[in-house]
Amino acid sequence: MNFLSTGHFSPNELTGLIESAIRYKKGNTGRPLEGESFALVFFNPSLRTRASMQVGIYELGGNAVILEPGSTSWTLEHREGVVMAGNKTEHLKEFVGVLERYVSAIGVRTFADLKDWEAERTDPIMNAFAKFASVPVINLESAMHHPCQSMADMMTIREKCGPTKQNVLLTWAWHPKPLPMAVPNSFALAAAQFGHDIRIAHPPGYELDEDLIREAAHYAAESGGNLEITHDLEAAYKGVDVVYAKSWGGKKFYGDPDADIAHRRQFRDRWIVDEGKMSLTNDAIFMHCLPVRRNVIVTDEVIDGQRSVVIDEAENRLHIQKAILTELFK
Amino acid sequence: MNFLSTGHFSPNELTGLIESAIRYKKGNTGRPLEGESFALVFFNPSLRTRASMQVGIYELGGNAVILEPGSTSWTLEHREGVVMAGNKTEHLKEFVGVLERYVSAIGVRTFADLKDWEAERTDPIMNAFAKFASVPVINLESAMHHPCQSMADMMTIREKCGPTKQNVLLTWAWHPKPLPMAVPNSFALAAAQFGHDIRIAHPPGYELDEDLIREAAHYAAESGGNLEITHDLEAAYKGVDVVYAKSWGGKKFYGDPDADIAHRRQFRDRWIVDEGKMSLTNDAIFMHCLPVRRNVIVTDEVIDGQRSVVIDEAENRLHIQKAILTELFK
Amino acid sequence: MNFLSTGHFSPNELTGLIESAIRYKKGNTGRPLEGESFALVFFNPSLRTRASMQVGIYELGGNAVILEPGSTSWTLEHREGVVMAGNKTEHLKEFVGVLERYVSAIGVRTFADLKDWEAERTDPIMNAFAKFASVPVINLESAMHHPCQSMADMMTIREKCGPTKQNVLLTWAWHPKPLPMAVPNSFALAAAQFGHDIRIAHPPGYELDEDLIREAAHYAAESGGNLEITHDLEAAYKGVDVVYAKSWGGKKFYGDPDADIAHRRQFRDRWIVDEGKMSLTNDAIFMHCLPVRRNVIVTDEVIDGQRSVVIDEAENRLHIQKAILTELFK
Repeated sequence: MNFLSTGHFSPNELTGLIESAIRYKKGNTGRPLEGESFALVFFNPSLRTRASMQVGIYELGGNAVILEPGSTSWTLEHREGVVMAGNKTEHLKEFVGVLERYVSAIGVRTFADLKDWEAERTDPIMNAFAKFASVPVINLESAMHHPCQSMADMMTIREKCGPTKQNVLLTWAWHPKPLPMAVPNSFALAAAQFGHDIRIAHPPGYELDEDLIREAAHYAAESGGNLEITHDLEAAYKGVDVVYAKSWGGKKFYGDPDADIAHRRQFRDRWIVDEGKMSLTNDAIFMHCLPVRRNVIVTDEVIDGQRSVVIDEAENRLHIQKAILTELFK
Repeated sequence: MNFLSTGHFSPNELTGLIESAIRYKKGNTGRPLEGESFALVFFNPSLRTRASMQVGIYELGGNAVILEPGSTSWTLEHREGVVMAGNKTEHLKEFVGVLERYVSAIGVRTFADLKDWEAERTDPIMNAFAKFASVPVINLESAMHHPCQSMADMMTIREKCGPTKQNVLLTWAWHPKPLPMAVPNSFALAAAQFGHDIRIAHPPGYELDEDLIREAAHYAAESGGNLEITHDLEAAYKGVDVVYAKSWGGKKFYGDPDADIAHRRQFRDRWIVDEGKMSLTNDAIFMHCLPVRRNVIVTDEVIDGQRSVVIDEAENRLHIQKAILTELFK
Repeated sequence: MNFLSTGHFSPNELTGLIESAIRYKKGNTGRPLEGESFALVFFNPSLRTRASMQVGIYELGGNAVILEPGSTSWTLEHREGVVMAGNKTEHLKEFVGVLERYVSAIGVRTFADLKDWEAERTDPIMNAFAKFASVPVINLESAMHHPCQSMADMMTIREKCGPTKQNVLLTWAWHPKPLPMAVPNSFALAAAQFGHDIRIAHPPGYELDEDLIREAAHYAAESGGNLEITHDLEAAYKGVDVVYAKSWGGKKFYGDPDADIAHRRQFRDRWIVDEGKMSLTNDAIFMHCLPVRRNVIVTDEVIDGQRSVVIDEAENRLHIQKAILTELFK
């Protein structure tokens, strides 16, 4: 069983993972992964994922093997049927086929390139891993999803606000460069599955994927929650319990980062989380997946304030991933 | 005792390693390396070696320490008596002298640069490691040898074809760039030591090292096998039990990759392993050390076919290396 | 409790660490770090530190997690109050805040850039780690200090020369490029704390930091030792028991490496440790922290000679760091 998106699991299964993570957070629970190795494949930089996966696997008795295609290991081709006479040295089919002889599961981080929206929205590299692997594949952030993050987020909301339905704001923020949208996608999906009322605020030009929004709206309807989208920044903060900030690039600017940078310039200084906006909320907690640019996405005042839970979110990555690693092997 | 080339061991000793590897493949055999650390020094990228060594050392109870000279650790000078006022920061003599105070053995990967044939054919960097080290040095692919690979290959032939003498074809294949010849060298040597009848097929200009061929022919004579070299591509496949494909660069083109690329162009599309050629064999298995460029070295049809054993070869790296690691410490 | 400079500890405490290290060197002493993870953060290359920390943590039962900001993990901003709209992706405050939820201590290597003396002499990055962390921070070489090295040096002097006061020469040596002064700084401090008589020899232009020298002189006075500084190269060697060589850059050349290179040219071939100079000593041992450029800093004859203890120094890094890791957790 893979862990590619929370959408592949029922709310009950997801709640079970969080309850398992809460038990892990309370203390040591043996070495269920003793003797097992796990490949962590990083196409991109990482702090939280890299460190928390290594620590979690160690604490469960296992062994993490880190690979960086294109750096410590070979460049990878993921398309089938290609004549590999270009600059890619190894096919993902062999990469995965070999690795799964050595390891019990494969974690993969592979960001969007922000070059070709129609291709990247289908998550081609992560899905190639899943297609070729017979061992579990764990999504450590792909072009379109970051389910380990969104599960840590849901766990954090439950810890801080209780197990009930919350009013949650996912707000776009200005950043000097366009970024992938895996985090907002997965947050919207998971929040909908957990029954929260979700408001997504972004300026025109930063719409999330239509299918993704439709999927989230469907989960919201099923779980008794609600999903709305607004361009009205101040109104968005009114009465919410959770402010979740993230910057991302516009779909229509994929392949043209300068156009995105030019378009977003008008939103600088305004689309930032600050005390003024936070004061409009229902004493909301402040969340961000990190890394975050201070005084760009969020002011020092807010992120250093008492309602900031960004470090707890990051800590919960460790616990939820232990739950995922052990649940996948039952 | 070092593990630099199968040529330093008798056929009996090599067979003993394979029998040990077969036992490791059957299951857990304790933690003989508990408390021991092993340095893995990578001058070049790696997937199979990096992952299988880390997993094997962990499964045996030990600890792998990875170093990458010129990246995570300092650039290295291996020549003696040099005034080190250039761009090399540390001498291999100190690098090895220090490491062996921390670890029980040192594995080294250091590819040929394909720049200076007369120098590289003597394997200067690997031999400097062996000279300066008092702990065992394990060759994880040098300019001229890849004995962990060739031992995994011999183990795979034995598993798939039985412990008897086989007809083995080692065939050059077209690749867009010249590559090192460590793999064909070590395969030819080991196959000769194990008594197989070896045919080496390559176009003019891709002759292997004369001393190496002489050494392999000597082993073949001793073990009752045979060694022949041919330029006749189709004839080469007739009646063989094993097809082992690999591309390599021409000795005379060392230092001039463009000349090699121009010369090899005529062999493109013809020097590839495909179903037509495989049908000439005695239902041969297909082998390659990986990484392999699909539809360049071998067609999808062959590598994805039932007679392809490339993933098993790679898996056997894990088992044979466990045997090498534990035999070296007896 | 952090381990940033030996100056933060009393001579008694430092001696206790060496005695603990001597016990570790004699053999296994259990797994006091079982279940604990340790972050090793490398902004710069490393051999000894990287390998000895990994091996030491493993031998003590723990788990080392390596991070390389700007490569495997994100680029880091360490200044407070900055609007992070430039090229830094994560603030050190979050980096540390998150890591300490996963690990028991954080080791950091961050070299001087040799660009801005007034800023770098305050060790801004290492001190930011210490400021933001609530778990212990271990200095694995900062802009101004390398206390793990100087403690291994003090241990080596005690092993080779006995526990009594020695006459110690710290000599500058020519090197093609300016280097940081963390090693000479920490050596001078620690040698003074341990009561040795220290002579520092360097050409004009390579003065160490005035505050640092004042601090070392203060310790020397307290411990009954002596500190002198000389430009007289030959006189410096007379009668000393220990020759400690190191090259470093001139404070006044920070930001202008070409000026330093031009200035130092006159000292080439003369400011090198050779047999002639060693013969002026009281049969001194030769020490260097490594990596060392042979026949630039020291001749082959000296470093390969019987009085060279450079490999022992490097080995002692392993033992003293085990002492530091376990003492910090008492």
